[in-house]
Amino acid sequence: MRILILGGDGYLGWPTSMYFSARGHDVHTVDNYLRRRAHLEAGTDSLTPVLDSLPARADAWRQVTGYRIGVTEGDLCDWAVVERLFKDFEPEAIVHYGEMPSAPYSFISREHAVFTQYNNVVSTLNVLWAMRDFTPDAQMVKLGTMGEYGTPNIDLEEGYILIHHNGREDRLPFPKLPGSWYHASKVHDSTNIHLACRIWGMRATDLNQGVVYGIETDETRLDSRFATRFDYDEVFGTALNRFCLQAVIGHPLTVYGRGGQTRGYLNILDTLQCVDLATMNPPAPGEFRVFNQFTEQFSINELADLVQRAGAEYGLDVRVEHLDNPRVEAEEHYYNAKHSALLDLGLKPHYLSETLVESMFAKIEDHKDRVITKAIMPKTRWRPAAQERESVAG
Amino acid sequence: MRILILGGDGYLGWPTSMYFSARGHDVHTVDNYLRRRAHLEAGTDSLTPVLDSLPARADAWRQVTGYRIGVTEGDLCDWAVVERLFKDFEPEAIVHYGEMPSAPYSFISREHAVFTQYNNVVSTLNVLWAMRDFTPDAQMVKLGTMGEYGTPNIDLEEGYILIHHNGREDRLPFPKLPGSWYHASKVHDSTNIHLACRIWGMRATDLNQGVVYGIETDETRLDSRFATRFDYDEVFGTALNRFCLQAVIGHPLTVYGRGGQTRGYLNILDTLQCVDLATMNPPAPGEFRVFNQFTEQFSINELADLVQRAGAEYGLDVRVEHLDNPRVEAEEHYYNAKHSALLDLGLKPHYLSETLVESMFAKIEDHKDRVITKAIMPKTRWRPAAQERESVAG
Repeated sequence: MRILILGGDGYLGWPTSMYFSARGHDVHTVDNYLRRRAHLEAGTDSLTPVLDSLPARADAWRQVTGYRIGVTEGDLCDWAVVERLFKDFEPEAIVHYGEMPSAPYSFISREHAVFTQYNNVVSTLNVLWAMRDFTPDAQMVKLGTMGEYGTPNIDLEEGYILIHHNGREDRLPFPKLPGSWYHASKVHDSTNIHLACRIWGMRATDLNQGVVYGIETDETRLDSRFATRFDYDEVFGTALNRFCLQAVIGHPLTVYGRGGQTRGYLNILDTLQCVDLATMNPPAPGEFRVFNQFTEQFSINELADLVQRAGAEYGLDVRVEHLDNPRVEAEEHYYNAKHSALLDLGLKPHYLSETLVESMFAKIEDHKDRVITKAIMPKTRWRPAAQERESVAG
Repeated sequence: MRILILGGDGYLGWPTSMYFSARGHDVHTVDNYLRRRAHLEAGTDSLTPVLDSLPARADAWRQVTGYRIGVTEGDLCDWAVVERLFKDFEPEAIVHYGEMPSAPYSFISREHAVFTQYNNVVSTLNVLWAMRDFTPDAQMVKLGTMGEYGTPNIDLEEGYILIHHNGREDRLPFPKLPGSWYHASKVHDSTNIHLACRIWGMRATDLNQGVVYGIETDETRLDSRFATRFDYDEVFGTALNRFCLQAVIGHPLTVYGRGGQTRGYLNILDTLQCVDLATMNPPAPGEFRVFNQFTEQFSINELADLVQRAGAEYGLDVRVEHLDNPRVEAEEHYYNAKHSALLDLGLKPHYLSETLVESMFAKIEDHKDRVITKAIMPKTRWRPAAQERESVAG
């Protein structure tokens, strides 16, 4: 299958590109190095050393495996780039990771909020119009986020909910309560993609993904040059990955607030499996299919406990520090998210365990000298400073 | 009250500016003439002649009434403009009409779709950040649209719905099914404004407005230079206004498809009342309040019948033509939208009648010679031409 990977230089995009390439698919990737530039600006970096560019990564991949991955260095907000990509490559599946993916980033300033929404909404609109004009039978596999739903007081269904109301009923999009400008941009994308399916008969799968952890895949293990990035900084680092790194370098685990925040999590190996299953089992024309993509739910406190236990086992002295929460979010809440659709398609989950955490410790230790400690503590706050002082005073 | 009117040059923005000014409020308007420029590009124009610029309108208003309306000619996507506005004027209420408001416009091309969403999302984000930084206690009164809901098979509630699900319940945002890139941009705005209320304690009212008809308000009647624009073209014209004009010039009423499409409608006089009621009864800090702003529901066929009856009374021979629907929409559907919140605040509706339609005929006759007939028939289609042929063939 001709598979176009948008955001092919990222934490998940690069492993996905190798995954499909290794299985004989014709893979083309595109990236504009948004993430690398954001790191440069902030003076941060990936823990793992990654090759300098996507062409360098594709070259190394070809040298070792013989498989060719096509590369375009360009911005999906630029129509000329998108048009050429679709005309030249004629993708059958478009796997869309190509977005600015950080909630804290979107709160740094007005410019960051506007950029996040502009970038994500416009790039996705461009891709939808390109599909309409050049590959109307192709499918989009879009990486959404469980964060689109927020934390309502009812079970989270997979994209839709059957509502009974005043004696009538309809199956409607599940109401969304995103908690950041970034998460809101993903809600906008979902609304737009759903519209394209209804109007143009397009086919799309929205993978509302949980928090991904892990550092290695079957392909990254083949050669050190195949490593994917691993972020632990306050802007791009996510809970479990960051905790593992903190444990290794003797930094207290930074739990935001009371730590009752519960979310869905999955191993990076399962991201690859899920994207594969979605792509190989496409939706019908006109169908906007939504899967909740995670394998287990944990609260932040449960993750901190697990890392602490695994640390003890491993010989690390792990402390937990509850920080004043920089975010505005419920710290204790109901959370029960359905996630059976991908299991029904054949997903075999890699569940979280102390052993997995210890293997992450080992991998992180290899690159311990690269850690930029000042990047770890949260500086970006959801509320302006004046309001924070007020709520302390009041 | 210091009231900032975004989009103060528009069909509703200008009458709203005069309305508040006439009632002793300190009014400042801003506009970048988006609508005027779109008309120039398309070779179309308002039926009613309107003064050349917002400063000219404000001058005429001041000469006649003695009231001063402040004016900024500028683009809300330009932060420098927004920042200066908020710093200088320090609004207590922001009435937000300042968006590209056309569903057909958003389907003309990819560029038009992207521009519509870019313009509406970025301008609203800029305003939210300006409120955060300069006027955190101000309220936003945002013009949304009933078109955000689409036509689900259940009663439409006012912004939220109490959902009972698996033994639990929550009051959540009403699911949205927008039918165009424009309507989707309004859904994005609602998501963003709701987020700002939750995160920053902002106060906002989202007025999900139905289709507005009418040509005159108490203020436009005072002087011909106070006239507001009246659009009848395929891009900016809306159902009843367009039908009235078609009746006057002897053009068949253009009913799209079977004509069972049912929507909420209201008189322009009631738009002014509703915006006034919302502004004078602000929501609590942190509250994102949603009102459905219309007074009556009609199907397109009912409106065509009414215009035909009023035409017969008035001496016009009105024919109805069912056109191949350029849109993708349900032509027969359930529709029962709640709209009691504004009535509870004191709205006294001006209901639609043959008399009202006849008074519109009279006003339209005054400017009959200005009608650009070629602008009336729908040219913009929701689906690409190739797909249309296919669905005819299939």
